[in-house]
Amino acid sequence: MTTPLPSSLHRDMTDLLGAGWLVDDSERLAYAYDNSRRLALPDAVALPTSTAQVIALVRACRAHRIPLVARGRGTNTTGAAVPVQGGVVVSFERMDAILDIRPGDRCAVVQPGVLNGDLQTALAPHGLFWPPDPTSAAFSTVGGNLACNAGGPRAVKYGASRDNVLALTAVTGAGELIHCGTATTKGSTGYDLQRLLVGSEGTLALIVEASLRLTPLPSARRALRAIYRDVSSAARAVARLMAQPVTPSMLEFMDAQAVRLARDVGGAELPHDAGALLMIEADGDADRLPHDIEALMRAAEGDGLVALDDAADEAARAQLWAARKSLSPALRTLAPGKINEDVVVPVSRIPELVDGVQRLSRECGLPIVCFGHAGNGNLHVNLMYDPADGDQSARANATMAEVFTLAISLGGTLSGEHGIGLAKRDFMPRAVTPPTLALMRQIKTAFDPDGILNPGKLLPP
Amino acid sequence: MTTPLPSSLHRDMTDLLGAGWLVDDSERLAYAYDNSRRLALPDAVALPTSTAQVIALVRACRAHRIPLVARGRGTNTTGAAVPVQGGVVVSFERMDAILDIRPGDRCAVVQPGVLNGDLQTALAPHGLFWPPDPTSAAFSTVGGNLACNAGGPRAVKYGASRDNVLALTAVTGAGELIHCGTATTKGSTGYDLQRLLVGSEGTLALIVEASLRLTPLPSARRALRAIYRDVSSAARAVARLMAQPVTPSMLEFMDAQAVRLARDVGGAELPHDAGALLMIEADGDADRLPHDIEALMRAAEGDGLVALDDAADEAARAQLWAARKSLSPALRTLAPGKINEDVVVPVSRIPELVDGVQRLSRECGLPIVCFGHAGNGNLHVNLMYDPADGDQSARANATMAEVFTLAISLGGTLSGEHGIGLAKRDFMPRAVTPPTLALMRQIKTAFDPDGILNPGKLLPP
Repeated sequence: MTTPLPSSLHRDMTDLLGAGWLVDDSERLAYAYDNSRRLALPDAVALPTSTAQVIALVRACRAHRIPLVARGRGTNTTGAAVPVQGGVVVSFERMDAILDIRPGDRCAVVQPGVLNGDLQTALAPHGLFWPPDPTSAAFSTVGGNLACNAGGPRAVKYGASRDNVLALTAVTGAGELIHCGTATTKGSTGYDLQRLLVGSEGTLALIVEASLRLTPLPSARRALRAIYRDVSSAARAVARLMAQPVTPSMLEFMDAQAVRLARDVGGAELPHDAGALLMIEADGDADRLPHDIEALMRAAEGDGLVALDDAADEAARAQLWAARKSLSPALRTLAPGKINEDVVVPVSRIPELVDGVQRLSRECGLPIVCFGHAGNGNLHVNLMYDPADGDQSARANATMAEVFTLAISLGGTLSGEHGIGLAKRDFMPRAVTPPTLALMRQIKTAFDPDGILNPGKLLPP
Repeated sequence: MTTPLPSSLHRDMTDLLGAGWLVDDSERLAYAYDNSRRLALPDAVALPTSTAQVIALVRACRAHRIPLVARGRGTNTTGAAVPVQGGVVVSFERMDAILDIRPGDRCAVVQPGVLNGDLQTALAPHGLFWPPDPTSAAFSTVGGNLACNAGGPRAVKYGASRDNVLALTAVTGAGELIHCGTATTKGSTGYDLQRLLVGSEGTLALIVEASLRLTPLPSARRALRAIYRDVSSAARAVARLMAQPVTPSMLEFMDAQAVRLARDVGGAELPHDAGALLMIEADGDADRLPHDIEALMRAAEGDGLVALDDAADEAARAQLWAARKSLSPALRTLAPGKINEDVVVPVSRIPELVDGVQRLSRECGLPIVCFGHAGNGNLHVNLMYDPADGDQSARANATMAEVFTLAISLGGTLSGEHGIGLAKRDFMPRAVTPPTLALMRQIKTAFDPDGILNPGKLLPP
């Protein structure tokens, strides 16, 4: 048992956390990575069980200027949970309680370590759900979802994490317990600190309790599949769909490459001449649903539509989603390496984004596959390459930088729901003007005067 | 023509703003008050027409440490727009352009001085609207709505100002132009500064451009009027209404006193035995509406319901809303003075709030009338008294302090949509813990290092 941490800190934390203080190499290794496939060994891992322990931990680390990296289940894709400067990883896996569910207030109070999927299961009997639904929902935590402002397909209708939080209790980098917001759906009492914490990737404070805004579960849902001749026809349909009153509960886009993969590798029954595909879903009361589907069908129709299918039964809907979910693994058949970024642009600029990405793909000679949450203009741009090939790696990185430049030039930004972490940190100055970035740094200093919380993430050095 | 400002500043601002720099006493007087009926004469009034002028103005005032108070049309009720420390009032009345409307992106880009009502008129032909609908909408500005996070009846379904902003351009107290957020419905690129600015009452930065999130206009709406035996029956109905899937587009509450005033003074046809009243509205497609109304009627039914009327035609609906709108003027028949605060509590605590307020009314011997946005737990508590009577004034103020304490003890807070300003500033330490308030002060300093923006507001001295 060994740790490079100061021995007094090690002793104090052993006293404080007991079996919740891990310093064995093998144990530390389990907390060294996230889904970005980056890896850096923490000096220790803390598994607090109470807010009081979190406060004591932060104060002790602050006294020694030791970095603290908050961690849910490490499903994020940006390196935000990797302790690149060593220090202590704080895993919230033992603070995973659902403290309260109040259906009349449409509110749940939870600890940060609860899994998104477990929360949904607990809410369902009350006829409620929490809208954020990242692909990782079954095994990602609410705290992690809040840290990177996770979204998912449903965000087009129900918003992302930031839109679905009422109040947060958190411990700042100064070791102070702060209470941000109130568990009410309206509030105009001072500065809105809770939405500021959402998406801050553990760089401002550690969330120890969250009051979440819940939404009544729709009783039914129905999906449409619309195939278009080309991307711009599909993108124009997205704009029409978003300009009419029935907001779809999902509005997913696949480019021609993604359709081909879903067909050839994912086994979906899809035509060979699809230039782009939209998966459109409506949810609500069973009585109203046919009417909503009709409105969405009308909006989906237009120049360039090749086929429009109503996946009226659950089996057809499930097949469609299975094809969508098979995309990520199917990508690996194109190349062993993937850079997956989630740029976002105004919906009307999607055609220019996809056209520009295809041009960049031709120029660099590497496949790029686009799919994602069209209703939010939030596309997952997957650039495939061989990491063992140094030349390809260099071209891949240079091309992704151009994808960011393109998204920004279209009035968009670097990330819709994944966050910045390490992966996009150095691109922040392209997306955020110098005075705005300077202000973000000052806000960081106000919350975390010694810079111990997740150093090196989100803000460029 | 005279101003107490330094003569060099006066000269520079005359050069910069020309006829947009007012120093005449009579002109200054027009900018000395807001709807809180407080009054303090500014030393000058600036009417900038461009962002460049705002930047130059802030930098000049900062150099002289002169306060700057942003102003829309002065409809706020908290004194937030009153220049209590003198200095310069910046009125945005000449920066009132609608710069862009992009229906496919559900986005409008506006200058801060545009009237909420004028914006709605411009949006209607596109089948879109901006959700915030304060009673003042016809003559309040978008900038003012954003400054105090204005809501209104529709917020229960569509959110308040903070929920309907995508991006803001603003000038900080340091005279720096910042760009916060992007005009996309999703974003996870650094700290969320735009929602932090909303509700900050001009204490952090001056908003010079706003990208607003728009919503498709529903094609039809229909209202219900539900009368209950007592407040707790009505409040239980509110909780039932909010726990089912059809979110009402408005859910307004009146207590027995408010019902009596609406009947006797406002001329509404209302029964004499009403203990409480709910006005419930649904909006959406005409085809779907009957179904929604049916769902709302089912939820409104329950123990204590005296009468449930479907205001199926527009005339019946208009009569209902006329009664609701007549309430504020009708209050003056009770007493010449009014303290109107807009506390907010979780929906399930409304009965305790109203019961507690009625107890406080009996104890202080002054009438208190409650009505407001029940679906958000946001009640307007109107305490009526004679300001000429020193004893009544003292009791009124002491009682309102107890109303705040009550709301906070029920898990609520000081304001749902009016903001803090001067009126509730000294109550902030009851609603916000010391470390959280300290952090708000540090954030204020980061944005406004010399404290020139709206000094004395929102944060207690």
